[in-house]
Amino acid sequence: MTEDLKFEVGTRLADVDKPGVNARTGVIRTPHGDIATPAFIPVGTKATVKTLTPEQIRQTGAQAILANAYHLYLQPGHDLVDEAGGLSRFTNWRGPTFTDSGGFQVMSLGAGFKKTLAMDTKGLERGDIKAEKKERLAQVDEDGVDFKSFIDGSRHRFTPEVSMQIQHGLGADILFAFDELTTLVDSKRYQGEAVERTRRWAQRCLDEHHRLTELRSDKKKQSLWGVVQGAQYEDLRRDATRGLIELDRRAREDGRRGFGGFGIGGAIEKENLGQIVGWVCDELPEDKPRHLLGISEPDDLFAAVEAGADTFDCVAPTRLARRGGVYTLDGRMTLTNARFKRDFSGIDEEFGGYVSQNYSRAYIHHLLKAKEYLAGTLCTMHNVEFTVRLVDNIRTSIDEGRFYEYREEFLGRYYASLK
Amino acid sequence: MTEDLKFEVGTRLADVDKPGVNARTGVIRTPHGDIATPAFIPVGTKATVKTLTPEQIRQTGAQAILANAYHLYLQPGHDLVDEAGGLSRFTNWRGPTFTDSGGFQVMSLGAGFKKTLAMDTKGLERGDIKAEKKERLAQVDEDGVDFKSFIDGSRHRFTPEVSMQIQHGLGADILFAFDELTTLVDSKRYQGEAVERTRRWAQRCLDEHHRLTELRSDKKKQSLWGVVQGAQYEDLRRDATRGLIELDRRAREDGRRGFGGFGIGGAIEKENLGQIVGWVCDELPEDKPRHLLGISEPDDLFAAVEAGADTFDCVAPTRLARRGGVYTLDGRMTLTNARFKRDFSGIDEEFGGYVSQNYSRAYIHHLLKAKEYLAGTLCTMHNVEFTVRLVDNIRTSIDEGRFYEYREEFLGRYYASLK
Repeated sequence: MTEDLKFEVGTRLADVDKPGVNARTGVIRTPHGDIATPAFIPVGTKATVKTLTPEQIRQTGAQAILANAYHLYLQPGHDLVDEAGGLSRFTNWRGPTFTDSGGFQVMSLGAGFKKTLAMDTKGLERGDIKAEKKERLAQVDEDGVDFKSFIDGSRHRFTPEVSMQIQHGLGADILFAFDELTTLVDSKRYQGEAVERTRRWAQRCLDEHHRLTELRSDKKKQSLWGVVQGAQYEDLRRDATRGLIELDRRAREDGRRGFGGFGIGGAIEKENLGQIVGWVCDELPEDKPRHLLGISEPDDLFAAVEAGADTFDCVAPTRLARRGGVYTLDGRMTLTNARFKRDFSGIDEEFGGYVSQNYSRAYIHHLLKAKEYLAGTLCTMHNVEFTVRLVDNIRTSIDEGRFYEYREEFLGRYYASLK
Repeated sequence: MTEDLKFEVGTRLADVDKPGVNARTGVIRTPHGDIATPAFIPVGTKATVKTLTPEQIRQTGAQAILANAYHLYLQPGHDLVDEAGGLSRFTNWRGPTFTDSGGFQVMSLGAGFKKTLAMDTKGLERGDIKAEKKERLAQVDEDGVDFKSFIDGSRHRFTPEVSMQIQHGLGADILFAFDELTTLVDSKRYQGEAVERTRRWAQRCLDEHHRLTELRSDKKKQSLWGVVQGAQYEDLRRDATRGLIELDRRAREDGRRGFGGFGIGGAIEKENLGQIVGWVCDELPEDKPRHLLGISEPDDLFAAVEAGADTFDCVAPTRLARRGGVYTLDGRMTLTNARFKRDFSGIDEEFGGYVSQNYSRAYIHHLLKAKEYLAGTLCTMHNVEFTVRLVDNIRTSIDEGRFYEYREEFLGRYYASLK
């Protein structure tokens, strides 16, 4: 059995032999088109990048979108999306698609139904597993996770097999193995257990992915990516990575499908993000793409690309936009602020793009104040275009051998207002 | 002084010599482009056709948009829109624009702030002026109207002069004279007084329009249209129309600007809509365009076109859309209905259009249930395209001499589900 997803490495950063430095450009070839990497992938949680039509998503320069297994399982149901012909036909986004496993959401949103988020560390001591368990409504056991729906509080259970069945139903080009989300307050012992459990789950994902692939000829092209956990611990991250590589190797030896790529997930503090991605990418094979889950801040993107991540997704650009928060080359601004009432310049005329070229800050300020839908659409288009183009520019800077110069130039200016 | 707006009549309906039959095709030439008539003009109340970008409005086939003096006076202020370079620059809609006078809104929304709407006839007797006055928060006097803001309840006053100043600030191609909105429960005596007052206000609008046009060379191309009131009474409607024609004649004799066209407003019951428009258009000169305010139901559009109306606006297609109500050739449907959950056909595949060709009822049902912004966008695009194209088809049917055949075919099918 062949792996349909191909990844071709382009330019490698000159410093690429240093530990923790693994930056490269590349192309992921999916059944729905190519993704030039590094690339930012906007999130369409409920099978829609909120406020945008597929044409508008395309206009931002986005090459692919990422939807959410957890949300689509609850509403409208993965079986319905399957019946519709999969995510691409259902949404009319005809480019490449990703789905995440739902692991993050069942353990954060699932626990959050009218209760404290599992990710919320308030009142918890680092390593105090007991206190943490008490707060959680999502309960992890060896087999899977029980959780409550964020919509109506109804009880559900996800296992690696359920996640694969959902993601096969959704039919994205790239899907992720079901992993356990831990938090920064979990003890190292618990993190170690979670890494082991995530590895066992990854094997079950491979098995179920194989079984489902054999069942349905129309699902043969989906590519499963393993997800590396291990929090902030170098030994756990390296162990987790090697474990997944070993699972992949054995699967291939048995003539079965392995992992088409790898995801890097879990609890990561901003300060050591680059380091953690570096440990993982030092271990990972050069010829497979690597997706860093849930990242979009400019400094994080530069750090993660340097360390070897190829693709990124995050809800921040779209979520922030709906409240009027927009990115500029000189940092973030909030267009609800009264100082924009009579500001007839574009959001960022130097950056340019569809929104800055066609609408004034004053117009968007008015739309936000009047609670008009179009405010969300315009701010979303701007932020997605900004983030997509930033990563596109990072890609070009690697190809042109000026990654570090570009990083210094961009970040120096972007964060200047914070100094 | 010349009138910059030109109107050219194309085909006249064969029956056009019968009383009350005045249908014709034509072209209104505005500074921002031509409008082939009959035409439906979508409403962009607060300087946005809710949920749509200008490109999406254009994609529906709409030739012009109509914004609201009352709403834009309150938020963000007409002075700000003026500073931005007018409605067209502010919104980035570069086609023709209309503004209505605010007369309707100050007397309906203005009265509605935390109170009974003036248009709400509950508890009122027909002709019981006293009871009605008690309910109203908008108070009409000879000079103008006092009303409360729908946003914060603050007190404001509109006069014909204020309406002209606001509409000059907004800078649309076509603006309307400030008129008094009456209701169906007003006595005939009161309606007669209102017609007289509206005529005096129309003269003040002409005067203020002239004064403002002389002040600002960049406003020379705005075209003021008089508004005919008179409710359901033939004598009042004909008097009102003749009165405005007389004002126009005198203005031109004095070498001043007259009316570039006419609006037909006020309290109209569905049953006699065609008749009322017919009385007015029998009186109106052939060489001026006629706009019927606030109409979009298919049977009303056919009746009004037959009677001689050229352009139409209405919030119904866009308002209905945001709740999931959509038009089809077989009548209206509401996509929130559970029967659409697994309906993978387009809204109306025979009608076609962008939305029906690209999205399923099931997808839009999902978006509505998930309260996703895109639901409103897609339903709005569909309804605007549907209404615009219906009126476009009526235009073609007149040009091709098969207006009555098309009417019978369309309405027979559209309303069949109601029989």
